[in-house]
Amino acid sequence: MSSITQTIIKTKQASVALQAATDKQIKKTLNDLSKALLQHSVTILKANAKDVAKQDATNPRTDRLLLNTARIKAIGDSIKNVAKLPLPGGKILDKRVLKNGLRLQRITTPLGVVAAIYESRPNVTYDIAALCLRSGNACLLKGSSEADNSNKAAIKIIKQVLADNGLPTDAVNLLPPARETVNHLFTATKFIDVIIPRGSNGLIEYVRKNSLVPVIETGAGVCHVYVEKTADLQMAAAIVVNAKISRPSVCNAMDTVIVDKAIAKPFFDIVAPLLKEKDVSVYADKLAYPLLKNKLTVYKASTKDFATEFLSLQCAVKTVGGIDEALEHIQTYSTKHSEAIVTNNKKLAQRFLKQVDAAAVYHNASTRFTDGEEFGLGAEVGISTQKLHARGPFALEKLVTEKWIIEGKGQIR
Amino acid sequence: MSSITQTIIKTKQASVALQAATDKQIKKTLNDLSKALLQHSVTILKANAKDVAKQDATNPRTDRLLLNTARIKAIGDSIKNVAKLPLPGGKILDKRVLKNGLRLQRITTPLGVVAAIYESRPNVTYDIAALCLRSGNACLLKGSSEADNSNKAAIKIIKQVLADNGLPTDAVNLLPPARETVNHLFTATKFIDVIIPRGSNGLIEYVRKNSLVPVIETGAGVCHVYVEKTADLQMAAAIVVNAKISRPSVCNAMDTVIVDKAIAKPFFDIVAPLLKEKDVSVYADKLAYPLLKNKLTVYKASTKDFATEFLSLQCAVKTVGGIDEALEHIQTYSTKHSEAIVTNNKKLAQRFLKQVDAAAVYHNASTRFTDGEEFGLGAEVGISTQKLHARGPFALEKLVTEKWIIEGKGQIR
Repeated sequence: MSSITQTIIKTKQASVALQAATDKQIKKTLNDLSKALLQHSVTILKANAKDVAKQDATNPRTDRLLLNTARIKAIGDSIKNVAKLPLPGGKILDKRVLKNGLRLQRITTPLGVVAAIYESRPNVTYDIAALCLRSGNACLLKGSSEADNSNKAAIKIIKQVLADNGLPTDAVNLLPPARETVNHLFTATKFIDVIIPRGSNGLIEYVRKNSLVPVIETGAGVCHVYVEKTADLQMAAAIVVNAKISRPSVCNAMDTVIVDKAIAKPFFDIVAPLLKEKDVSVYADKLAYPLLKNKLTVYKASTKDFATEFLSLQCAVKTVGGIDEALEHIQTYSTKHSEAIVTNNKKLAQRFLKQVDAAAVYHNASTRFTDGEEFGLGAEVGISTQKLHARGPFALEKLVTEKWIIEGKGQIR
Repeated sequence: MSSITQTIIKTKQASVALQAATDKQIKKTLNDLSKALLQHSVTILKANAKDVAKQDATNPRTDRLLLNTARIKAIGDSIKNVAKLPLPGGKILDKRVLKNGLRLQRITTPLGVVAAIYESRPNVTYDIAALCLRSGNACLLKGSSEADNSNKAAIKIIKQVLADNGLPTDAVNLLPPARETVNHLFTATKFIDVIIPRGSNGLIEYVRKNSLVPVIETGAGVCHVYVEKTADLQMAAAIVVNAKISRPSVCNAMDTVIVDKAIAKPFFDIVAPLLKEKDVSVYADKLAYPLLKNKLTVYKASTKDFATEFLSLQCAVKTVGGIDEALEHIQTYSTKHSEAIVTNNKKLAQRFLKQVDAAAVYHNASTRFTDGEEFGLGAEVGISTQKLHARGPFALEKLVTEKWIIEGKGQIR
């Protein structure tokens, strides 16, 4: 048996033992972990410096990898906040007494073992560990090789705090960052209850295609803002610019602006200079191209551009004859993440909100709000782009399953 | 493009059009369908007779395939009951106004397209179509070749009723019964939202391993009844016999009885004659074998027997030193369907109910109650043995996903 399989089995056993832990014990563990981070900040920073030293300082990924005192403090604060969250398990969803006297309850209960596969940010190691412990789950963490020193320092601290609090140290385990690790996870259906991949599309797609263990996808967003002809064009421009430029590298950033032909010219007159000012370049369809040509950097759009999640200061522009065409375009290209309409026509807004099939659908607001913290859910586990179990930003409350408890006095059927 | 792919795409389009249907329209459609079944009962019976004629009359599967006037009436009644069920979509799960004035709602909404893969029972065609329509979903039905004439008759009637009620006829489509059909379903991630396999373990396993579309498993049950040493032995015997013999071919039937060594002899004295009377043969472990040898047909159990879902008048017998060993045995062999303890020790009962990881966990009752109708959920879609989205018996309320609706006045982030 490989050492990875052994670790997986030990984590499963720890998940069973973890059920005996009290709420108080878990809370104290998380608060202790928060303190331990500050106590061991020198160790954490030293380990992180080794990881950072291997990277090209000019690469934006290096900043994602970097820890400093302020960031360690922020992680500690976040763990403290997780400790305060209500327990998602043990909630009674349904309660009934059958005619035959059987007493039924449907209750929430921890999933068991959660495996997370993620990329360079070292804070994810602490975040996922804290969220899993709070919800009564054991976890398996598979980070990137770039952050391996940082992650090893993290797991050492976490295990020490678990031990000090009388919890099974195998409740949190770090797996080797090598790619082949994931193949062990994919087949461990008896020991792992869910895999949550966080990272690039390539990673998520690979997990979805190959895992026999159920997956919660936290996927790509090809997001649209549709500027309908009755829209307040200033508002529409502000939303489009914000949705594109406030953080272009994230999944809720806008990728395509859809514009009613009737207002394309006046709208472009307002929005193009604003996009140009922020160095946004666009891929425009046939009708939009000549209207934008002299206003900013513009290329002729191909079909591929409409299916692209840009993650950069680029977007596509599509003109339409009205809402039907807009809905059709969205249905064809949307990854069902976040979609917005800007309009003053309430009836059309309602139709859009009802008919668009996405995790988050907006009327007169930026798609950038799709986020667990922004939605007030507390620490976010991820933004699900699938339809089963969790959809959109989700937190602790989705790290549980259900269970029917039936109490009788000898009833038979 | 293959004709199957064309049908899949047309079903997706119908699922969008279906969103415009009113609650009243859907209810009327279902009530009309219920009536149409009676009107066309001669046609239905003729088609069914063709299917039945091809089968061996002595095979129990033939009875499952058979329709008669009473069964058609029962299907019609069941459709009428589905029409009465509350709409699972449009339920507000969460509602909040953020500090920035954004108004958020999390609501339930139809999944879109549900694909069902099932075996010989022709009533499933009507059941799934009715449940999907009631919940606002379009559906793709893949039945067995044995029931193909019956299913073709069904789909013709269903489509006529859809058309008469102004609903898209592609909202319900029957696919060819050939095995290769399923491979088209497995890759249609853009058009199918969930696949529900209903049937043998082999089928379910095949779907789980090969589908890229999310699956709700409705799987096998290796179910245990644990007779703890403080149990009322008469009650325990009644539960064991009922869990085994009342319908041995179904997933909630008992497969292994676990018995505390301390009461093994007196318990076997009571239960063995009852099992013998019903022609049950047993696979007994080392300690149980000599105690049972002269009481009924008994074989020496191998490890494989403890992992078997018998679906027949057979069961395994395992003796243990107490609850820890019982829990360990269940954790090793359970398929997480239905598990029971018989005991008068309330503390041990609570521990068992908490610690056993299964969809339904019982104290002093037969595992045979795990069923949507028995639990009072209304028409059951299936009994889920997975942990995400749906667990245990589930009905209409799990044929929905969630969606965040966000209404603003131009808010940007």
